[in-house]
Amino acid sequence: MQNTLVNSNGTITPGTEANHISVFDRSFFYGDSLYEVFRTYDGVPFGMDEHFERLWISGELCKMTFSQTKDQLKAECMKTIQAYREKNKTDIYCRIIMSRGVGKIGFGLKNVTTPTHYYIIVQSVDDFKSAPIDQGIRLQVVQRLRNDPRALDPAMKSGNYLNSLLAYLEAQEAGFDDALMCNHQGFLTEGTTFNLFYIKRGIVVTSPLPLGMLDGITRRLLIEFLSEKNIPFVETAFKKEKLYSADEVFITSSLKEIYPVTQVDEYKKKPGPLTLQLRAEFHERILKQCRKN
Amino acid sequence: MQNTLVNSNGTITPGTEANHISVFDRSFFYGDSLYEVFRTYDGVPFGMDEHFERLWISGELCKMTFSQTKDQLKAECMKTIQAYREKNKTDIYCRIIMSRGVGKIGFGLKNVTTPTHYYIIVQSVDDFKSAPIDQGIRLQVVQRLRNDPRALDPAMKSGNYLNSLLAYLEAQEAGFDDALMCNHQGFLTEGTTFNLFYIKRGIVVTSPLPLGMLDGITRRLLIEFLSEKNIPFVETAFKKEKLYSADEVFITSSLKEIYPVTQVDEYKKKPGPLTLQLRAEFHERILKQCRKN
Repeated sequence: MQNTLVNSNGTITPGTEANHISVFDRSFFYGDSLYEVFRTYDGVPFGMDEHFERLWISGELCKMTFSQTKDQLKAECMKTIQAYREKNKTDIYCRIIMSRGVGKIGFGLKNVTTPTHYYIIVQSVDDFKSAPIDQGIRLQVVQRLRNDPRALDPAMKSGNYLNSLLAYLEAQEAGFDDALMCNHQGFLTEGTTFNLFYIKRGIVVTSPLPLGMLDGITRRLLIEFLSEKNIPFVETAFKKEKLYSADEVFITSSLKEIYPVTQVDEYKKKPGPLTLQLRAEFHERILKQCRKN
Repeated sequence: MQNTLVNSNGTITPGTEANHISVFDRSFFYGDSLYEVFRTYDGVPFGMDEHFERLWISGELCKMTFSQTKDQLKAECMKTIQAYREKNKTDIYCRIIMSRGVGKIGFGLKNVTTPTHYYIIVQSVDDFKSAPIDQGIRLQVVQRLRNDPRALDPAMKSGNYLNSLLAYLEAQEAGFDDALMCNHQGFLTEGTTFNLFYIKRGIVVTSPLPLGMLDGITRRLLIEFLSEKNIPFVETAFKKEKLYSADEVFITSSLKEIYPVTQVDEYKKKPGPLTLQLRAEFHERILKQCRKN
């Protein structure tokens, strides 16, 4: 790809030349990989430690033991980010993919001859810039259910992404920007790449993690932030009708931070005052933290 | 890998040199791919048409439109198989992987710049030879549930294989050869790479497809065969206790054909007479069909 840099197990190449994955990489034939995405602000990665802690949690859930240490991998991410920023002073989107390794076909771990390969993709974060805030994002609660944690735990951020991808395509076909998914009981879980919140009468509400979703880092930091600010907050299971009648709806992700939802199914919403206030204050908080580092 | 040949979009290379997948191949970062596996008998592929029909069904379930025709892909498989057999007169394991293509990161299909890449891996089928028949296979009904068809339909044979892989690892850790999975209601669905049958008082029983499993080609052909032979057969939902008290238990797959189960959880089984008879007759049927072609 244009304007990307790829670090494959320590070797950095332009994305246009990053054609060197083995057909026998388990990420390629089983999606047997884990990943994290984070971004920089003024060149400083935000929440990198939290992302690497979560990568290790994914590793436990996937029974994948990494051959590399957190420090090694963080250093490789930084090296790749710096190499990109030498030519382009933009902020960076950084994706690290951990493959279980390369080996002959077959599930058994003894087939893995060279365990855990890492691949780091960096590019300008501008390529992921959202539309203007007042445009917000229009979401459909799709028919497709979120993976059941008893089958494949959404808390594990893995290369098995078809569940969310097919949810996204379902929403796109219906004319929406993106999808929200329920569990088998009809309770809202999360979007394809983001967590979900709504506000009713000044109370901020989100779904509890055990319903089956990623322990989003922005979600977690926002919950701490709400507590600090004494803004009423509840974690509770809810169905889509609560979104229809909510005063405000927003999503969170490392790339979108806090971002307003302007439609849920046929119900139009406006970017609400508390959403916009939280967005502005949370963004300030991020910048302050990155500038401190 | 040693002793393999890989056909990547028409170019055949030894597996040891098959290091040319793009980091931006969607199979690599999302598991956004579909696949089929079939084998040859006396050099003739068995059930290739059925496998390609199922690949197209997977394509519909995954909203993936192939740029290649069935005939093109079959011809590429045959070309690769013949290239392997020029040097080695063994029978062949053939895996075809269809990736949605290569493109920049992001779910949208408009990101796919070169749609549907194919990769064919061939190797000697001997590498997958089972243990002697009387040894059979020892299976654990694992805690991990099979993917819910409403989340990710197991009828779609995709590169998202972590659900089955983690089931396999769970069974291995408990000292078993492989795993059987239930759906959320506790009904048996299938194994990690095979369908499941049991026999009680002369009646052959298997789970119905809507419970969430692959429409196995050996499963389907065996059901036809049972009907031809007037052997009593029922498709019905059942829980693990039925396996414990069954007279015989066996599995089916394109590689294992009909294969006896010698243990389910703590219950030991013997390869039973009807299983062994069906195995022998079904194997004869396969050979006859391949020799006719």
